[in-house]
Amino acid sequence: MSESRRGRPRDADVDERVLRATTDLLLTRGYAGLSVDEVAERAQVAKTTLYRRWPTKDHLALAVVTRLQDDDEITDTGDIRRDLADYLEKIAAGLNRMRAAGRPAGQQDDPSAGTVAELVAAAARHDDIGRLERAMYARRNALARRLLERARDRGELRPDLDLEALFDQLAGALYYRVLITGDPVGRAYAERLVASALAGALSREGPP
Amino acid sequence: MSESRRGRPRDADVDERVLRATTDLLLTRGYAGLSVDEVAERAQVAKTTLYRRWPTKDHLALAVVTRLQDDDEITDTGDIRRDLADYLEKIAAGLNRMRAAGRPAGQQDDPSAGTVAELVAAAARHDDIGRLERAMYARRNALARRLLERARDRGELRPDLDLEALFDQLAGALYYRVLITGDPVGRAYAERLVASALAGALSREGPP
Repeated sequence: MSESRRGRPRDADVDERVLRATTDLLLTRGYAGLSVDEVAERAQVAKTTLYRRWPTKDHLALAVVTRLQDDDEITDTGDIRRDLADYLEKIAAGLNRMRAAGRPAGQQDDPSAGTVAELVAAAARHDDIGRLERAMYARRNALARRLLERARDRGELRPDLDLEALFDQLAGALYYRVLITGDPVGRAYAERLVASALAGALSREGPP
Repeated sequence: MSESRRGRPRDADVDERVLRATTDLLLTRGYAGLSVDEVAERAQVAKTTLYRRWPTKDHLALAVVTRLQDDDEITDTGDIRRDLADYLEKIAAGLNRMRAAGRPAGQQDDPSAGTVAELVAAAARHDDIGRLERAMYARRNALARRLLERARDRGELRPDLDLEALFDQLAGALYYRVLITGDPVGRAYAERLVASALAGALSREGPP
């Protein structure tokens, strides 16, 4: 980032072409089919330019995911049950898209985490990517936290709510199913999750 | 598995030596430092034998994790708050061990998911490992489900509890922090999670 401020302004059009070519390759061929050289060719950008800014295909892949994820908006209708289910559904859709990236049409229901798992490993492999990736999730968590705070402030949610634990539980359950158990995620599951987290597990009658 | 039933009985001692050597290498050097050849040498097992049963280092690594995880027991003291916190603490300890695997002493607090992420990617890369890994998590989820069912049946938890969503939320939050946000997990966080999931997020006074 600081490099572009010191030198000549970065060519936004180059960024756009590179990220578009990477997105196309990632979604059609998956992580294993992504190569920096092929992105350079498709985006018509010199390889040296590409490697200077995105040194590995891990860097390219994470740049795409960051952009896709930062595009997800949270809507606040004043009904926390609906707003949370809507947002979790968006997160699930993003996960499902990456999970299925590069799979042939007949294997869309494969329970493997696919490219989602490769992206998580890519972030763990490079310190600089890890920092960018955690910053991206911090932005998302901050958005969700403000939604929950507003619902708490208007009396929908309890005043002593553990905002961080609550959002970890909701988003975490989606990632757990995609990355670990292989179970499906989508609208129906998002609604179950929200219902479960809002109502709590304790018996309403209190301890027996 | 079926192969060993058809041919001569598998040498349990070989398995033991191989898994012990793999565990040592994985914990001291991390995923990048694990190699099938070095495991063969340390375990004093012929490479052909090793490759026949564990074709890649991904297979070896997952075998180790499966064994470690299957050793985690759930205790049922009749207090669901304590039993869940105890079990989540065990899961967190396993994740922290793999997260720190291969790191120099000074970098134990690195927020990267480390070897946990590589193991998740390994399972996504091979269909056979993916199946074994999902079977391992299904065993763990079944144990947790029985614990929750007993607490429900004795009246601690609500009768209409969504058992699957509840455990996804609890275990999922731990994996989310380790794999995605880089936040720490341990006893204190396990207790916060359980408190949050048991109490629920809705205001006690009901909708305003």
